[in-house]
Amino acid sequence: MDDRTGQRIVAETARRSENRYGNRPTMKDVAARAGVGLKTVSRVVNGEPGVTPDTERRVQEAIDALGFRRNDSARVLRKGRTASIGLVLEDLADPFYGPLSRAVEEVARAHGALLINGSSAEDPDREQELVLALCARRVDGLVIIPAGDDHRYLEPEIKAGVATVFVDRPAGQIDADVVLSDSFGGARDGVAHLIAHGHRRIGFIGDMPRIHTAAERLRGYRAAMEEAGIPVEDDWMSLGVTDPQRVRKAAEDMLSGPSPVTAVFAGNNRVTVTVVRVIAERGRPVALVGFDDIELADLLEPGVTVVAQDAAALGRTAAERLFRQLEGSLITPERIELPTRLITRGSGELPPAD
Amino acid sequence: MDDRTGQRIVAETARRSENRYGNRPTMKDVAARAGVGLKTVSRVVNGEPGVTPDTERRVQEAIDALGFRRNDSARVLRKGRTASIGLVLEDLADPFYGPLSRAVEEVARAHGALLINGSSAEDPDREQELVLALCARRVDGLVIIPAGDDHRYLEPEIKAGVATVFVDRPAGQIDADVVLSDSFGGARDGVAHLIAHGHRRIGFIGDMPRIHTAAERLRGYRAAMEEAGIPVEDDWMSLGVTDPQRVRKAAEDMLSGPSPVTAVFAGNNRVTVTVVRVIAERGRPVALVGFDDIELADLLEPGVTVVAQDAAALGRTAAERLFRQLEGSLITPERIELPTRLITRGSGELPPAD
Repeated sequence: MDDRTGQRIVAETARRSENRYGNRPTMKDVAARAGVGLKTVSRVVNGEPGVTPDTERRVQEAIDALGFRRNDSARVLRKGRTASIGLVLEDLADPFYGPLSRAVEEVARAHGALLINGSSAEDPDREQELVLALCARRVDGLVIIPAGDDHRYLEPEIKAGVATVFVDRPAGQIDADVVLSDSFGGARDGVAHLIAHGHRRIGFIGDMPRIHTAAERLRGYRAAMEEAGIPVEDDWMSLGVTDPQRVRKAAEDMLSGPSPVTAVFAGNNRVTVTVVRVIAERGRPVALVGFDDIELADLLEPGVTVVAQDAAALGRTAAERLFRQLEGSLITPERIELPTRLITRGSGELPPAD
Repeated sequence: MDDRTGQRIVAETARRSENRYGNRPTMKDVAARAGVGLKTVSRVVNGEPGVTPDTERRVQEAIDALGFRRNDSARVLRKGRTASIGLVLEDLADPFYGPLSRAVEEVARAHGALLINGSSAEDPDREQELVLALCARRVDGLVIIPAGDDHRYLEPEIKAGVATVFVDRPAGQIDADVVLSDSFGGARDGVAHLIAHGHRRIGFIGDMPRIHTAAERLRGYRAAMEEAGIPVEDDWMSLGVTDPQRVRKAAEDMLSGPSPVTAVFAGNNRVTVTVVRVIAERGRPVALVGFDDIELADLLEPGVTVVAQDAAALGRTAAERLFRQLEGSLITPERIELPTRLITRGSGELPPAD
């Protein structure tokens, strides 16, 4: 279609919807006030040539007087593209996602795109609802930290050209780009570190096993124990929600009884923070290695040894991959795994207390 | 206008833009495949009556087969309303905003609205760009943590019916709802607490003075010192960006020289974290009270005494006020100030080291 028509339809649609709610000025209102045609207003608004300085001034005055603002929703319909990407997090308040979100936003901004984000609160239905709401708002692409394990609901959107990159956890049931940390290798190294310092009775406290990272870290714990020929007792492993109450009870149970564990591997930053508290309250030294670094970990006594992942690098890598998809320079989905780093600060080097 | 017309215009517009990009199925495609009229598809999609079960099934099959999804951008134009609110933060990675964002999202969700957020990175131009981009995408309302001090650019949007609540910092040059913590009173109490423990040479390290909270906390520091009859020396006050390098130098300068300060009041959580590091490195005890609570502050030795504000309550109060505006039950803008709470943990109760 030619621009005139498109422009007219959009302005018409806008005007009609406005008349219904009666508050937003439209191009037609501007045209009327400036005493010019709709196309002239459109030329000024879209910075197209063919308008005399005097006319442009009159139109601009009308725009200012009425407070008219070009409606990007209409432009979406006209151009079929918005300059925005969606980021679906698991929890807006988890400090792990702060640097990740900021990295995604910086890449989006470098590409002139607006970042729209929201969280699933670890609820698969809420994840799908949010993702589809973002697609309905015509985001160009999505960076998703999935809560669910079946993403076939995304296939129509991907077919429709929505770029998609999963981060921190892989997609389920569909073939999509994913950027992960090496949860298995990181956990295995962290547990092997405790074993190297003489521990055999080592506890693992992690997130719900249906979460990919939690399952991978448990697998790493089991692998390290197996490689050392240490049979794992069931009550050394506790997986579930990471709220302080649940984690506190799990830690207290492992550290009590006839044969308590002498060391704990904490499956993520939320778990580590609570375990540090429980250990501090009990006085008796217990070795600890946590997955994810935590702020001030180096200033605690002892410092907290952690398996650190680079949250900013996860976000940056995922976002850059998303824009490469949008530029059409990526065809086949890949799985990118970023290495973790063991940072020794004292808590992971404590010998078994017996 | 009657629904038929509106429906037709929207579908027309959608179809034309689709034909241009050729991938998203439209209502017209669904109608063609199901062998029914556009209005019938619209009835099914919008859950309106007057469609036989058999027809509804045929339409649904066509919708599933084509992967058609109702386009909310089009619905915006038709209904003039989106169920979404925008949240403009200062920094996605600042832990202070985590609980605030989550609280806003919870309230939005309770009202069936999607939360769209982004950050200004403390740049007034970026704040305006982001706010107007969100308005152009027809958010119903905005919760804004402002970076700038002139918000007249928002007047046309507010006039057009966009609900607006400022949080953490007030709006500039316009009369708008704002929800704040009592930065002045909190800082005054925190500094008075240090004075009560025998300190007279007290340093203040805060954020850039153009930021409302930073200016208010400095005012609280000055008030407490004046009430105690202590003349403040210029080199006891350092305001600027809160990155570790700048804050580290400021702290080291105050703690060195012929007559170092014996206590420091840290203007926010970012400053506190760095000052805690500097004090720990120097070994010599220095009293510290920080504005904002920080994770693990209670487990440090000594524990960090803080003036805590309730970030979740700020977000919840602002978001609830936003929806009351949208329900039309609020007329005149108000300034709501939430109290702060002094939490003593040891660092603020240290006597002067002399």
